[in-house]
Amino acid sequence: MSKNIITISRQFGSGGRTVGKILAERLDIPFYDKELVQQVADETGFDTSFIEENGEFSPSKSFFSFALSQGVPCTQNGLSISDFLFCMQRQVILKLAEKPCVIVGRGADYILRDRDDVFNVFIHADMKSRAERIVRLYGESEKKPEQRLNDKDKKRKIYYKHYTDREWGDAKNYDMCLDSGRLGIEKCVDLILDAIKD
Amino acid sequence: MSKNIITISRQFGSGGRTVGKILAERLDIPFYDKELVQQVADETGFDTSFIEENGEFSPSKSFFSFALSQGVPCTQNGLSISDFLFCMQRQVILKLAEKPCVIVGRGADYILRDRDDVFNVFIHADMKSRAERIVRLYGESEKKPEQRLNDKDKKRKIYYKHYTDREWGDAKNYDMCLDSGRLGIEKCVDLILDAIKD
Repeated sequence: MSKNIITISRQFGSGGRTVGKILAERLDIPFYDKELVQQVADETGFDTSFIEENGEFSPSKSFFSFALSQGVPCTQNGLSISDFLFCMQRQVILKLAEKPCVIVGRGADYILRDRDDVFNVFIHADMKSRAERIVRLYGESEKKPEQRLNDKDKKRKIYYKHYTDREWGDAKNYDMCLDSGRLGIEKCVDLILDAIKD
Repeated sequence: MSKNIITISRQFGSGGRTVGKILAERLDIPFYDKELVQQVADETGFDTSFIEENGEFSPSKSFFSFALSQGVPCTQNGLSISDFLFCMQRQVILKLAEKPCVIVGRGADYILRDRDDVFNVFIHADMKSRAERIVRLYGESEKKPEQRLNDKDKKRKIYYKHYTDREWGDAKNYDMCLDSGRLGIEKCVDLILDAIKD
């Protein structure tokens, strides 16, 4: 069976999102990242920034005050907001994956794990390449880029472990893992395209 | 700089050794697996089976009795036998990596980690594919194949952690990780060849 759903998990700043975007263009299939967030926003009524922050990161200390400021209740249908969001994201991902597409992040690799037509990719890179990339794309901030990267990685790792009981970035969870710092974005795209060819 | 030293780390039964062997043939460069063990044997005077068992696995309970039966002292130059073996393997790997080659296992990815001309690969596969492979290649044994695989994985993981302080199979340690169960051996070889092309 051909692999026409591609999930891209990625370290922050690795360019994994860009890999997914180019891949979707080359395959002429939809690309879901912010678009997925928008769909979850439409389903739940939550703000997109709230979903982005809590839909693939472990809740921060400011989660509850942020939730309150958004007028979001701390439980929904008996679930914590975080669990409710995971369930809603899961439903949206299952729906999107009815047709060929590229999905970035949000535990899609785990949610679609039993399907033969899904190809799971993890993109990572060394700290130096990622730090340069986030400063170039998002500018400087009060925190050093290395600190920002470590914070994001840690939160994604905790979120993933909590909802999947697996280790984020463990090679065994993915069909292919690539170091975009060493290989470059374009080469990563080419390698994934070669890998999914029958 | 071209990447002409390729290290292959692999789960037991994933076919990683075969991937390395075909890769070396296709690149027309030497392949070191048993050959590396033989060189360490020549340097140390230890038996090859002793090196195979203790050169990339955590020492088993029977380590000391086995060492004694081989006439191997439990320390060497003030080092434990295990540390001594690691040092000797390291020296042999550094020597071999003076010229293009494919090296399987034995922490070569870590030992050569600072070199730009080295490309590190990790090959893994699902339990079912690996179990079928080891029964086909090595036959049945008293232990179930799944148990044999889990034992080997665990010992490699402990050994790698001890000598590198890194997680064995963590995608970040490798330039490329591939699931040979899903992709097949030949496709893995092709993808590595594409990845190392300038």
